[in-house]
Amino acid sequence: MAFDRLELLSEHGCFGGVQRFYRHASHEIGLPMRFSVFLPAQALAGQAVPLLTFLAGLTCTEETFTMKAGAQRVAAELGLALLMPDTSPRGAGVVGEDQHWDFGVGAGFYLDATHAPWSGHWRMESYLLEELLPEVIGQFGLDGDRMGLFGHSMGGHGALTLALRHPGRFASLSAFAPICAPTRCPWGRTAFTGYLGQEESGWAEHDASVLMGRQTEAPYPAGILIDQGLDDRFLAEQLHPEAFEAACVMAGQPLTLRRHAGYDHGYYFISSFVEDHLRHHAATLSR
Amino acid sequence: MAFDRLELLSEHGCFGGVQRFYRHASHEIGLPMRFSVFLPAQALAGQAVPLLTFLAGLTCTEETFTMKAGAQRVAAELGLALLMPDTSPRGAGVVGEDQHWDFGVGAGFYLDATHAPWSGHWRMESYLLEELLPEVIGQFGLDGDRMGLFGHSMGGHGALTLALRHPGRFASLSAFAPICAPTRCPWGRTAFTGYLGQEESGWAEHDASVLMGRQTEAPYPAGILIDQGLDDRFLAEQLHPEAFEAACVMAGQPLTLRRHAGYDHGYYFISSFVEDHLRHHAATLSR
Repeated sequence: MAFDRLELLSEHGCFGGVQRFYRHASHEIGLPMRFSVFLPAQALAGQAVPLLTFLAGLTCTEETFTMKAGAQRVAAELGLALLMPDTSPRGAGVVGEDQHWDFGVGAGFYLDATHAPWSGHWRMESYLLEELLPEVIGQFGLDGDRMGLFGHSMGGHGALTLALRHPGRFASLSAFAPICAPTRCPWGRTAFTGYLGQEESGWAEHDASVLMGRQTEAPYPAGILIDQGLDDRFLAEQLHPEAFEAACVMAGQPLTLRRHAGYDHGYYFISSFVEDHLRHHAATLSR
Repeated sequence: MAFDRLELLSEHGCFGGVQRFYRHASHEIGLPMRFSVFLPAQALAGQAVPLLTFLAGLTCTEETFTMKAGAQRVAAELGLALLMPDTSPRGAGVVGEDQHWDFGVGAGFYLDATHAPWSGHWRMESYLLEELLPEVIGQFGLDGDRMGLFGHSMGGHGALTLALRHPGRFASLSAFAPICAPTRCPWGRTAFTGYLGQEESGWAEHDASVLMGRQTEAPYPAGILIDQGLDDRFLAEQLHPEAFEAACVMAGQPLTLRRHAGYDHGYYFISSFVEDHLRHHAATLSR
């Protein structure tokens, strides 16, 4: 598998490695897509290092976490490559795609839409799992057997659900302020209604708390790390970490859910704890 | 001295401290001005910690370094407050103020304009030295005898010139890719012509290399730190670090000028070395 029309948009020296932005023609999405990748010095020297993929939240792009989180410093130290995909197709021309900040452009929810008109391009799950990750692994000579996944908010939902829907693909998992029960919150219900249709029976397949509650043994025996700010204005209505916590108890899944007084939903929160997340992943990936 | 109409715009928990954005009515500028401040836990607990001020480059705002540099992590560890001012007046309504990215709005050059129409509002030197810094020191209970100054590009010019023009105000000094000889580069000549007039005799008072060359003893005996990327597309035409380096030799000023292969002019460069800068300042300030 190889990238179609892979185009290097920019390249920046960063903590002894290199931070790059790319565009490519995505088969799954049917449109050009952008992503960002950080390669530590170890990868530039030819080592097949692990790949840690970060899924960003509503309204974000491949640049947001890249620019704001300060993760490259720790990735450089630990010898992890970082992949930051975009959050949705862009330029599809679907009517209404940019009318709402929580649906459509910038709000792909990391699933394959089954409902027209979104099903044509909004195929973020297949894009990530079947196209982008394998192609990044191949293109940069990374170790596809050592992949970790994390994300924030909508991207935390993406990380938890994709990791549970694709057992064995990811060795380590964490999230910042994830949408833990999208079938029960306004953001998730809006998105699932649009992308999956009004029939709710299929929605559970994309709800991290439902998926975890079904597990008969812990899918991530090394533990899942979740950080949640208590000054997060979306916490009460949209995030429901307690639902995922309860599901982990049911499944016997070790979970470290840290609730932080004084922290909100933004990148000052993420940057404060991103080092802990990278070390959590490295504990499994850097074997 | 007290802030006029100080207004807290937002507040974010960050590395155990707090990242705040403010607006106030500036007497010197004659307009509302914004700034950002990071207070480490030590300051929130009532300690009079040192204040390190960062001056940003062309087109930047008080948010740029705050969001992109990752400095709060190190400031939290070292117990330094950080101040990020804006880069110019905004909303003055001067004809042409927003027509050029390297002059006018976002391009205050950290001096007091003497030439109409800019002299009415473009008073960044007096704003910083006589108004913002004393008011921040007082408002947040910081130690005004332990202040450091650093900056990037135009803000590196600002840091070097203000520190040399106001002996004794700052105890420590550093810069990223500073404009070292503005009287000899296009950015500087454009700015000085506009703000100071075509008569070049007064320009030297705002040229770091000229100012340093005049010193009869080292103004910063603990040394000045400058980092410069060698893939910086502005290096050859605009920055002239060799001029400042030569002036430091003449003045007997210890200078650590590090030239980094593979690094450009942006924040991936700054973030890679910001920890070294904070530690450089703390070595003098955290006594």
